[in-house]
Amino acid sequence: MRTINTITELKEWVRAQKKEGRSIGLIPTMGFLHEGHMSLVEKAKAENDVAVMSIFVNPAQFGPNEDFDRYPRDLERDQQLAASAGTDIIFAPSVEEMYPKESSISFSAGELAEKMCGATRFGHFDGVLKVVTKLFHLTEADRAYFGQKDAQQLAIIESLVSNFNFPIEIRRGETVREEDGLAKSSRNVYLSETERSEAPHLHKALQAGKQAALTGEDPKAAVSSYLQAHTSGKIDYIEFLSYPALASAVEGEAILALAVQFEKARLIDNLIFNPKGN
Amino acid sequence: MRTINTITELKEWVRAQKKEGRSIGLIPTMGFLHEGHMSLVEKAKAENDVAVMSIFVNPAQFGPNEDFDRYPRDLERDQQLAASAGTDIIFAPSVEEMYPKESSISFSAGELAEKMCGATRFGHFDGVLKVVTKLFHLTEADRAYFGQKDAQQLAIIESLVSNFNFPIEIRRGETVREEDGLAKSSRNVYLSETERSEAPHLHKALQAGKQAALTGEDPKAAVSSYLQAHTSGKIDYIEFLSYPALASAVEGEAILALAVQFEKARLIDNLIFNPKGN
Repeated sequence: MRTINTITELKEWVRAQKKEGRSIGLIPTMGFLHEGHMSLVEKAKAENDVAVMSIFVNPAQFGPNEDFDRYPRDLERDQQLAASAGTDIIFAPSVEEMYPKESSISFSAGELAEKMCGATRFGHFDGVLKVVTKLFHLTEADRAYFGQKDAQQLAIIESLVSNFNFPIEIRRGETVREEDGLAKSSRNVYLSETERSEAPHLHKALQAGKQAALTGEDPKAAVSSYLQAHTSGKIDYIEFLSYPALASAVEGEAILALAVQFEKARLIDNLIFNPKGN
Repeated sequence: MRTINTITELKEWVRAQKKEGRSIGLIPTMGFLHEGHMSLVEKAKAENDVAVMSIFVNPAQFGPNEDFDRYPRDLERDQQLAASAGTDIIFAPSVEEMYPKESSISFSAGELAEKMCGATRFGHFDGVLKVVTKLFHLTEADRAYFGQKDAQQLAIIESLVSNFNFPIEIRRGETVREEDGLAKSSRNVYLSETERSEAPHLHKALQAGKQAALTGEDPKAAVSSYLQAHTSGKIDYIEFLSYPALASAVEGEAILALAVQFEKARLIDNLIFNPKGN
């Protein structure tokens, strides 16, 4: 496995793959890898000739009061994990390399970003659209891999790709969980011991909500009362929407999603299912 | 030469070219071709293995009171001209094919679009960014060709490509003019006989302004007084800016640009030069 830091070097590598007719799978990450990322690498390796993982904590998707500076970083550990999962290339550029100058041109994610995480993380998804567009173009990947845990991100990126005809296929990876049900996340390291013991209840709350939905009851109320009974975290949102359109009128696939703010970590989780019976 | 109307068929053709390792040159047009377009085709053919011309009157770049409906169209004539210039493929999709559904995601061209044509054509360049992004992705072109006559469009597209790392090279074509100096434009057909006889003065006004700039005088005043003396058209703007940054402080390359509104045609033209001596 090779680590590449510059766009020039990455483009040389991409050119060489294209010339040999090799398909490229891209796993965009912010590093501090966990099994969720590893499962995406495995999927990428199974479906493509080569797998490139980007590791870039993207300032454009963090708000001024968010955790950009203290977002966990450990490139050496990431390199070992990525290599062991079969990654061919890590692309780990500096902020200056990715954003050499202020651009007057920007994306607006629009309505899709008004709900769920977008309602409180203003501009977050515009920044996501910016960085994934750059990464899709730089790697010229045939397929890109995203986890379902960031379901709103996934829906917005799928919409981007389809509306702007990117020549790339978006592939979803299922949420990977700890044995107790907590969704794997780089931000889990922020949890205190007490919070960590409460955190699996997020998933249990979603399961309770799903049961409610399947029996015709209000899933959001079920999630809310479960969370209040079992965690000290502050509920940021609980949403029950169509998926991937994120519309209020649910027909077909639905997403039941939540965000809970603990002292130093804001955790998100979701279930996607068909409320009319799976 | 073949005319393709659907995205599916275009993508098949693109795949075949890529498989054979052929480079693709794209000439995005709105049709009603003139020698300006033909010179771009010749450039594209000289620099690429194959040339694809898109012909698409893009509704996203027309304002509600602009000339989308009456924009001149003549596909049969365009096909003959394009073929004679060596075009391999015309891609002429319907509006439904290009915009099958409303997208929540949009581009904002930002500051670069606030001056010149953008000051009065609100949203025009956002629509341009949308369609060129789609066309770049659909054709997977190695190079795309744009005329310098639409200099602001060119500057914004160059900024798009560089800021979002599109794997495409933007190539400029010089403005092609009638013998009397009038810049070739599909909209010239709108001119009345009298207006047509006045229209070459737009270019002459720019030349007078360039002379003024080179001798340290005010180029905008020179253009303005020349236009007022020689045409009945209403001046929409006269701008003297850095190029391609379009900043007020001119250092190095500058653009002297104008737009004049005649009864049914709004004409634009420009000169790009170094005011400190060529």
